[in-house]
Amino acid sequence: MRGKFISFEGPEGGGKSTHAAALADALRAEGKIVLLTREPGGTRLAELIRALVREELEDPPVTRSEVLLFLAARAQLVANAIKPALARGEWVICDRFADSTFAYQGYGRGIDVQLLKDLNEFATEGLVPDMTILLDVPPEVSRERIAERQKATATSADRIEAAGEAFHRRLRDGFLALAKAEPERFAVIDSSGAPADVDKAILEAVRGR
Amino acid sequence: MRGKFISFEGPEGGGKSTHAAALADALRAEGKIVLLTREPGGTRLAELIRALVREELEDPPVTRSEVLLFLAARAQLVANAIKPALARGEWVICDRFADSTFAYQGYGRGIDVQLLKDLNEFATEGLVPDMTILLDVPPEVSRERIAERQKATATSADRIEAAGEAFHRRLRDGFLALAKAEPERFAVIDSSGAPADVDKAILEAVRGR
Repeated sequence: MRGKFISFEGPEGGGKSTHAAALADALRAEGKIVLLTREPGGTRLAELIRALVREELEDPPVTRSEVLLFLAARAQLVANAIKPALARGEWVICDRFADSTFAYQGYGRGIDVQLLKDLNEFATEGLVPDMTILLDVPPEVSRERIAERQKATATSADRIEAAGEAFHRRLRDGFLALAKAEPERFAVIDSSGAPADVDKAILEAVRGR
Repeated sequence: MRGKFISFEGPEGGGKSTHAAALADALRAEGKIVLLTREPGGTRLAELIRALVREELEDPPVTRSEVLLFLAARAQLVANAIKPALARGEWVICDRFADSTFAYQGYGRGIDVQLLKDLNEFATEGLVPDMTILLDVPPEVSRERIAERQKATATSADRIEAAGEAFHRRLRDGFLALAKAEPERFAVIDSSGAPADVDKAILEAVRGR
């Protein structure tokens, strides 16, 4: 039997990687084999692309180049990690997937969302998550958490984190619009509460399907 | 006045970079400002992508990922180098451009060529060379020259160079089919003769338009 593919999506500061790891642990405790991965990344090539996108370059990627780099990483991850795992009957949990492209480069940067969907279809050969967990946080919580993380790790904001408030509002609205258009795929979970409560809500949502 | 954009295309061993540089010199001797560049490459980001595609990885790019990486490099080169130079009225000479995608990943690797044209349109925002010089060499000459180059530089064949004979035949036929479909853009020049004769033929073809 083909495995299940769950993606985690949402604005920065929603705790995607923490909650994705917690869900993977909970499923493993039930005896399931789980591939926990992330985007961009998850294969050697894709991690190198991730480093490239985040590097401080004299010519940071223009939006179209950024889209194509993320899609290149996704094509590699899908072909060499996600599809083989699903074919083996394993569960796959991915921290970000195609909806991040639609939200960031579409709603955020203004590239036509339908065009991005066509490009994404090429990259993924049509693979769509069985379920997408949208961890929603209001912009002010997102901002606070990013600031805390920077303080804790003594880093400065990267290009995405430093993009203005209007960008982050468009981003969140974009994610919510994507979820509204596909309610059968998305579970929208408020991630501004205590992490344990959020984990519980996620597990219930997954069991409910 | 907008500058002129000339791309050099063709199979390996056709002498593209040598002849592109010679044309740039000839135009500069006439007082023209010429941007001589190459694909993938030509900007810092695009050169890093070039290195990535050529690196020996445990997971070499799957074809779709390779397409998207080349397009990401192209998007960056077009936006940050080619379009600005053309807007300043300069000439741009590029060693490989979109036709290499159609020939290598389309005719060579079997991805639908029309689909590649749509993806390329996104990457280039519709920029097409004013003239494309196809340096055509028969497969046996191409093979010989690659072998000589490897001997001279003591390198081994890279992934593309090592692809089988059938691939290289499809590649050449692909380039010729592309040229046949757009005779007003392409000049097909036999590159199996003496380099000086080839340079002369190229300069005549450019002056003729």
